[in-house]
Amino acid sequence: MVDVTHPQPAQAPLTRDQATAYSALASFFRGISGLRHVEAIAAWDEATMMPEGSSNARAEALSALRGLIHEQLGRADVADWFSTSDQQAEQLLPWEKANLREMRRAWLQAVAVPRDLVEAASLAESHCEQAWRKLRPANNFSDFLPLLREVVRLKREVARHLGERLSMAPYDALLESFQPGLHQQHIAPLFARLRKVLPGLIGQAMTRQEKEIAPARQVQALRFPVEKQRKLVVEVMRRLGFDFGRGRLDTTHHPFCGGVAEDVRIAIRYHEDDFLPALAGVIHESGHGKYEQRLPAKWLGQPVAQARGACIHESQSLLHEMQVGRSEAFLTFIAPIVADALGTPEDSGSAAFSAGELRRRLTRVTPSLVRVDADELTYPCHIILRFELEKGLFDGSLQVDDIPAAWDAGMRDLLGISTKGNDRDGCMQDVHWPAGLFGYFPSYLLGSLFAAQLFGAAKGALPNLMDDIRRGAFDRLDSWLEKQIWGNGSFLDTTQLIEDSTGAPLGTEAFEAHVKSRYVLGES
Amino acid sequence: MVDVTHPQPAQAPLTRDQATAYSALASFFRGISGLRHVEAIAAWDEATMMPEGSSNARAEALSALRGLIHEQLGRADVADWFSTSDQQAEQLLPWEKANLREMRRAWLQAVAVPRDLVEAASLAESHCEQAWRKLRPANNFSDFLPLLREVVRLKREVARHLGERLSMAPYDALLESFQPGLHQQHIAPLFARLRKVLPGLIGQAMTRQEKEIAPARQVQALRFPVEKQRKLVVEVMRRLGFDFGRGRLDTTHHPFCGGVAEDVRIAIRYHEDDFLPALAGVIHESGHGKYEQRLPAKWLGQPVAQARGACIHESQSLLHEMQVGRSEAFLTFIAPIVADALGTPEDSGSAAFSAGELRRRLTRVTPSLVRVDADELTYPCHIILRFELEKGLFDGSLQVDDIPAAWDAGMRDLLGISTKGNDRDGCMQDVHWPAGLFGYFPSYLLGSLFAAQLFGAAKGALPNLMDDIRRGAFDRLDSWLEKQIWGNGSFLDTTQLIEDSTGAPLGTEAFEAHVKSRYVLGES
Repeated sequence: MVDVTHPQPAQAPLTRDQATAYSALASFFRGISGLRHVEAIAAWDEATMMPEGSSNARAEALSALRGLIHEQLGRADVADWFSTSDQQAEQLLPWEKANLREMRRAWLQAVAVPRDLVEAASLAESHCEQAWRKLRPANNFSDFLPLLREVVRLKREVARHLGERLSMAPYDALLESFQPGLHQQHIAPLFARLRKVLPGLIGQAMTRQEKEIAPARQVQALRFPVEKQRKLVVEVMRRLGFDFGRGRLDTTHHPFCGGVAEDVRIAIRYHEDDFLPALAGVIHESGHGKYEQRLPAKWLGQPVAQARGACIHESQSLLHEMQVGRSEAFLTFIAPIVADALGTPEDSGSAAFSAGELRRRLTRVTPSLVRVDADELTYPCHIILRFELEKGLFDGSLQVDDIPAAWDAGMRDLLGISTKGNDRDGCMQDVHWPAGLFGYFPSYLLGSLFAAQLFGAAKGALPNLMDDIRRGAFDRLDSWLEKQIWGNGSFLDTTQLIEDSTGAPLGTEAFEAHVKSRYVLGES
Repeated sequence: MVDVTHPQPAQAPLTRDQATAYSALASFFRGISGLRHVEAIAAWDEATMMPEGSSNARAEALSALRGLIHEQLGRADVADWFSTSDQQAEQLLPWEKANLREMRRAWLQAVAVPRDLVEAASLAESHCEQAWRKLRPANNFSDFLPLLREVVRLKREVARHLGERLSMAPYDALLESFQPGLHQQHIAPLFARLRKVLPGLIGQAMTRQEKEIAPARQVQALRFPVEKQRKLVVEVMRRLGFDFGRGRLDTTHHPFCGGVAEDVRIAIRYHEDDFLPALAGVIHESGHGKYEQRLPAKWLGQPVAQARGACIHESQSLLHEMQVGRSEAFLTFIAPIVADALGTPEDSGSAAFSAGELRRRLTRVTPSLVRVDADELTYPCHIILRFELEKGLFDGSLQVDDIPAAWDAGMRDLLGISTKGNDRDGCMQDVHWPAGLFGYFPSYLLGSLFAAQLFGAAKGALPNLMDDIRRGAFDRLDSWLEKQIWGNGSFLDTTQLIEDSTGAPLGTEAFEAHVKSRYVLGES
């Protein structure tokens, strides 16, 4: 991280308007941050605590708050402050300059889209998402189609407005709202390279694992009471350094890390017939949570203190889940903790909880239809498919009606499996599109790539890092991550942050080396 | 309840401005209601779920939201709508007219006080309340004094502004904000009458109970695990008709009923050495909760749909806790449920959980220093004392420095016990004053009086009501309460609601008859 605390440079005295404009913005955005805090807690409550009968009232309440935040950002005096503070920009401290840039980013995104379009899109998305919950299990694409058409129609409008205001292609404008600075021109070559090398790697990995002992079956026959699993994952969060003084763990249907930096709310789900989803889930979400908890405290409440977008956020969760969490070192550390928490005195020494068995189960490669169940090596294929389809939807080369056919073709091409007649596990499998989340998917794979690159840099900077991990000592790694990433907030642009922390722009080399080592050579 | 759904009367056509002003206000207040929903959930979270380290950020976030609501209410167009809608008032439907009155009430309260005074008062109250948490256990009044002085100084300013705007005495203006329409002129004669009769009743009750078997001691020696108590009180809430599809029960330090009508959040505390606080607490809070859950659904989101102030709210909780909950009939119904939940096979038939034993413990009269631990008969004395002191503080006849002496004199006079040198259990015992809640205390006793009066009316209207209660059948009572009180929302003024539902203005007769019957005669 560059030095952001160096003394204020000599500067020309500010006029009164200039001096007040930045302060006015800082105070305004601190208020917005408070509103976002309350919004985040109400949204967390909706996903974890709220009784079902309250959902309509909650939806309306959250929409009132979001509408008000949008309205506040559109205030005339806010626009005036931005134009006045422009003249002042050169005289701000470096962190204030970055803060002003981030304020402007948030402001432009909000004011670019007319309020009636925001509301229409939000309504169409609510309808489509609610219908999707019922239509997906019924594998009913034909009733889903008109709803998704409407969502895409309105999202194209939103993307057009955003793109015009930000001077970029519509789909780039959507990407920009999730991972600032990473657009199609950056993403396409990386994904193209992976598209080329992955089939070979997957084939080699499957050939190799045929010779290995298959994961034992007996563990699947055991039952793991939720209370025992909860104790285990809380212990794992503690060991990983999650601060329960400023965060919680709860239960939900779809695992997430929410809340705010000062109050991080992780939620996961439990399956009584297998403990691995909860364990892997909590390691993943802890990566998100630690990032939030160690954002720069001195700037909290300001946009510059926020996490640097979805790609970097996913890189922190994936660094924890994949780079650390499935390594031989980590599994050696965690195996006795798992056995302690879940085993009985009779079976606690059994192979079911051994590091080797955990590793075999967590690194099994099998092409499959559903993204969230995919292994580390086939997972990128799912994202590449969604990226290609989203690109088509927003450059007009793909229509909503043609998604199922395009999906099936993509899956056959990428993984050799078909979704024909099975839209439930094809294009209807994710909540993202019905919810209007176009442009988010790439962050999962970009996050994997950066996680590999960043963890490689960490190993270079921290000799014997894997020995630390084998002992469950994460302090050195955390300090390094805090220095490189967490404590930076949004001070640097995404691309600059990537280069400063790893010495290179985002590439596929580290990820390729990582999966080759783990899946083809059976190392680490 | 009067008929509020009758057809719209013939009326002169509205001008465009008039027609839109009321609609604009209705739409505006629906938005405010959404913001209040989110505020209520974040405040509930703060009291039940939030990790301690997040308290500063949460305080700031809630303050940002509250400030914004205050700012919204002060908007110039809102004032314009009110002045235009005045001319339209006669042409609105009855419920809309009542809604307009309630909108104006909320608006006047908000705009009467300058924002900088609101913020200064809120800050002083935060400081005083935080200090109180430490100074009360230390019995340290001298360090508490300057903080409370500042709270009172600012609250006097607030009350002066409110009083000027509402054309009433400063203390009446504070009372008005909690129980609209019930001011000193209504309260003082009622409390004066009770001051006269209570000492005699307390004496007679204590004489009578000396002849009764004292409550058994063995129950206090038992342990009651929280999980068992929780199951018991959830069952009690279910039997009482609390709707868990639109509400929850959680754990907290200070029992409350929060959330919103569509999502009622009850929270209580548990003591492992006694189950009665949790049981009594949950019956009390269920009274609040049922009122909220059965407010008029057709108006929800509008001010007219809200509960009719603190006095009526407390009357519903006290009707449940005292009138119903400590009756012989209810205890006969609940005793086997308690034994089932808490007893072991060996002791479940024991006297510890018998209706008679529950009754002896719940109706024991003992003058004591701490309000929240007081029995039903001595409780009013605590409120009378606070009312008299609050009146003095706001008419200038009592200064903050003289509170301890005045408190001691009042307690000796009312209950024959002294708080000299014991401010911890004297004037420092409640959070209300450090938190700036002046004018709230009377609602507890007004609620007791109205609960007795209302329950008397219910018994008159519903023959064999006590037989229903003995069988745990609350439907008829609930329907009657819904018709008389709950479904009315804020359609009627407090005084009109009291008269319409009971046929008389608020008095002490029903309460006197009730406590005489239960405590002096040992009936019901």
